Amino acid sequence: MTTSDTTSAGPLVTAAILVIGDEILSGRTKDKNIGYIAEYLTNIGIELREVRIVPDLTDEIVAALNALRARYSYVFTTGGIGPTHDDITADSVAAAFGVSIDHDPRAIAMLSERFPADQLNEARLRMARIPAGAELIANSVSKAPGFNIGNVYVMAGVPSIMQAMLDVVGPTLRTGVKVLSDTVRAGLREGDIGTALAEVAKAYPEVSIGSYPFWSETGPDTNVVVRSRDPEKLSQAMNSVKAMIESERARLSK
Amino acid sequence: MTTSDTTSAGPLVTAAILVIGDEILSGRTKDKNIGYIAEYLTNIGIELREVRIVPDLTDEIVAALNALRARYSYVFTTGGIGPTHDDITADSVAAAFGVSIDHDPRAIAMLSERFPADQLNEARLRMARIPAGAELIANSVSKAPGFNIGNVYVMAGVPSIMQAMLDVVGPTLRTGVKVLSDTVRAGLREGDIGTALAEVAKAYPEVSIGSYPFWSETGPDTNVVVRSRDPEKLSQAMNSVKAMIESERARLSK
Repeated sequence: MTTSDTTSAGPLVTAAILVIGDEILSGRTKDKNIGYIAEYLTNIGIELREVRIVPDLTDEIVAALNALRARYSYVFTTGGIGPTHDDITADSVAAAFGVSIDHDPRAIAMLSERFPADQLNEARLRMARIPAGAELIANSVSKAPGFNIGNVYVMAGVPSIMQAMLDVVGPTLRTGVKVLSDTVRAGLREGDIGTALAEVAKAYPEVSIGSYPFWSETGPDTNVVVRSRDPEKLSQAMNSVKAMIESERARLSK
Repeated sequence: MTTSDTTSAGPLVTAAILVIGDEILSGRTKDKNIGYIAEYLTNIGIELREVRIVPDLTDEIVAALNALRARYSYVFTTGGIGPTHDDITADSVAAAFGVSIDHDPRAIAMLSERFPADQLNEARLRMARIPAGAELIANSVSKAPGFNIGNVYVMAGVPSIMQAMLDVVGPTLRTGVKVLSDTVRAGLREGDIGTALAEVAKAYPEVSIGSYPFWSETGPDTNVVVRSRDPEKLSQAMNSVKAMIESERARLSK
């Protein structure tokens, strides 16, 4: 599927996330950005289709970025834009796009808001290295900017900074028709309703129906989530799911 | 890099995780498995190299699985092995390996430990569909098994069940030399030590040195993490990092 996908309800805008970081792969740091960005994108009508986590290796970053940016409307990266030698995201993005990279006067100006000249050392100036042609993404938390080049948005790995950057980026994005969702708690185990739920799903091929088991205070239970861009189809499918649940409850209580 | 990678300290065993689930990509469910598996693998000497999250679509699962299993020693999947129509992992794995899939008598026996015959309906029997040639992974929590085929380990998405399965799988895996790590808190900001830290990193090319900023009660601070399979090289590099930090502290306090 490509960025030209459309649905009966309108154009489809898709996205991928690329998390860059040895510390996530080693398990030392637990990622908190994927779930946050996923929820944010869903809420504004962008469909997150894929996530990849790769190590701090230029070739890996370049290969993943080029695969993802060719396939989805947007790619959001997190991590690797700090002041130390292991922060290689900006250079890797420049390599992926085949453009040069250098200290950007606009980024230096932003850093100067926080750091006096005698503290703007070689390390901190690394954070002003921006690929040619990129637009900066302001960082209200610690000043060092992210950037946008093509359909790629390069953001910090520290969650509070990433979130501040996403608040800047979000309103500028092209969005599609929002996926609506409705949830019903079945009061039954997943295996109790699975056979009948498959029939309902077959009857509504354009609606996505998901089944998620959980443990409640009364034992195993199931949430059934119906998702669609079309409110009428969503409502029809949800009514069928609820009727099916009633029917299965009656059958099982006999 | 391939599974035949070796290091001076011994053979390298690598892994990838493939998370299967629309509910993670929509942000409705926050993944808790990646960090757990990452830490588990690091602790037993397996290097996690890549993670992908893909939707509940057969073609996506097959493509990601075939890319990852060709490249790493092991692939661990989570999610999509429940009793409902949206659980398509087992069928997708069979398709990726080009083998048939059918109800497995061993898996039915396991399910029978929990479900009496009249509850082993079509939906629950979906959980006994196992690709030809696979070995089962016992599930001490809810009985429905995972499975292993080739270098791929297929596990549940529910964290408690995934963890129980990983405890079964872990001791059977080939492991490499464990990556050792040592952390020092710099008491300085990342940008204060970045330039000097890059010099240390250059002097120890076989050691991985990472820098992770955090906020402490006294303000911005930095953890420097040194990682290596060779305890002697680790110790030498860490001594140089500590000497560098002392020197930078002295310089900055002037």
